[in-house]
Amino acid sequence: MSNKEKTIIVSLVRVENGVSRETADTVVREIPVTLFLNDRELVTMVCSPDYLEELAAGFLCSEGILAAPGDLKSVTVNRTDGLVWVETTRPVDTDQLFLKRYVTSCCGRGRASFYFINDARGTAPVESGLTLTAGQVSRLAAALEEQAGLFRATGGVHGAALCTPEELVIFFEDIGRHNAVDKIFGHCYLKGIDLTNKLLVFSGRVSSEILVKVARMGIPILISRSAPTDLALTMATELGITVVGFARGARMNIYTHPGRIVTSNV
Amino acid sequence: MSNKEKTIIVSLVRVENGVSRETADTVVREIPVTLFLNDRELVTMVCSPDYLEELAAGFLCSEGILAAPGDLKSVTVNRTDGLVWVETTRPVDTDQLFLKRYVTSCCGRGRASFYFINDARGTAPVESGLTLTAGQVSRLAAALEEQAGLFRATGGVHGAALCTPEELVIFFEDIGRHNAVDKIFGHCYLKGIDLTNKLLVFSGRVSSEILVKVARMGIPILISRSAPTDLALTMATELGITVVGFARGARMNIYTHPGRIVTSNV
Repeated sequence: MSNKEKTIIVSLVRVENGVSRETADTVVREIPVTLFLNDRELVTMVCSPDYLEELAAGFLCSEGILAAPGDLKSVTVNRTDGLVWVETTRPVDTDQLFLKRYVTSCCGRGRASFYFINDARGTAPVESGLTLTAGQVSRLAAALEEQAGLFRATGGVHGAALCTPEELVIFFEDIGRHNAVDKIFGHCYLKGIDLTNKLLVFSGRVSSEILVKVARMGIPILISRSAPTDLALTMATELGITVVGFARGARMNIYTHPGRIVTSNV
Repeated sequence: MSNKEKTIIVSLVRVENGVSRETADTVVREIPVTLFLNDRELVTMVCSPDYLEELAAGFLCSEGILAAPGDLKSVTVNRTDGLVWVETTRPVDTDQLFLKRYVTSCCGRGRASFYFINDARGTAPVESGLTLTAGQVSRLAAALEEQAGLFRATGGVHGAALCTPEELVIFFEDIGRHNAVDKIFGHCYLKGIDLTNKLLVFSGRVSSEILVKVARMGIPILISRSAPTDLALTMATELGITVVGFARGARMNIYTHPGRIVTSNV
């Protein structure tokens, strides 16, 4: 799908210095997509209207429902109506799995953060010898911005790219931060792409939810042009993930596991 | 809570032009909060660690669980452990209400967008004679930026302000776009503040989910410094809400119901 199909021209009133005139401009499209898992309606999410197969698979990977390559039986997309049907090879107890984060079963009155971080701890720490130079970080961050055509046209999306140290491998833009990362996760699951020797470059803020996705993907390095939260950094420290934030031009902050980024003075 | 308590100082490695040095910087805090409704664990969300009472009430208002002023019996916050207990005066069937958007009950295979927009249509169109001048829009957008101290310190949050045409009335910053709006909703519900003669100024993108919140609040005008999506604009047109986007300096785009913004040539 071209960027043209992901946008729409709308009429609007533009005001400059108090004077208005009618004009038209490009607005990013947003559609609701309902996901059925083994014929049960599971979730309705809003997203950019492309790569729905990748989004559905990636969402289920992020939720831990799809893990091994053989878990997926089929994905069927009805693009016109925004419906996706996923079938797994084995039955899934969706009450247990999907709802854990949204509506956890009653289990006493512990610390919320204990449960939350424990959920992330269920993910194994990432072990990877991948390194890259600070110059490569800067070049990849610049390459993400060059790719971000939909953002330049509309200002309404986030971009995520899977990269080797040298170049962008896949790139997705979506109105949702989480969706852009899920589309990468889904694409790699569907194509069987190894993630442990790749890194993720991301336009959005690094919250705990993004960090959990990166950990589930087994990606050792996350580069963002935006800010991280303290909870994301705590998790990154525990889960062996290098987080680089504010990667803009020749500057960047390396928050966790800095050994994977090689600078000229070390 | 001061901005200082909403942030934390972390050690990091700063790289400039390939040269690294150890330093420290301010990072925004993110905590998980678990919400119990009538003694049943309902949801765990991540947010900035302040105004948890407002967040809980606003979340339940956005979900339609709290509507009339008498619906709320009590809110109890355990700030240390990130736990909030809400009791309502009448029993709530949370399976029906809360899960509708996340896990809708099986009801055939219609269009996802039909269900989604219909959910918004359950909200009555906003009727309000409120108007403001383009100059007032610009001044309120500038006032939001002046207030946004946490954003300036960390780059990691979104801000939302409830305003009269002349000034900001309340202001919240949160790591989540949705939370910032929910905290305003909750504050106004708890204090009994009339919203139909107010407007919302917002730093984030205007997606359908933000628009539904504004419609439920009964606020007639939404001003953002960012971009809207087409679905949000379709809903705004139907629900009688004026959406102003890209409000920066003396410029702005009025996308829907422009009659409420008075310019010098009309």
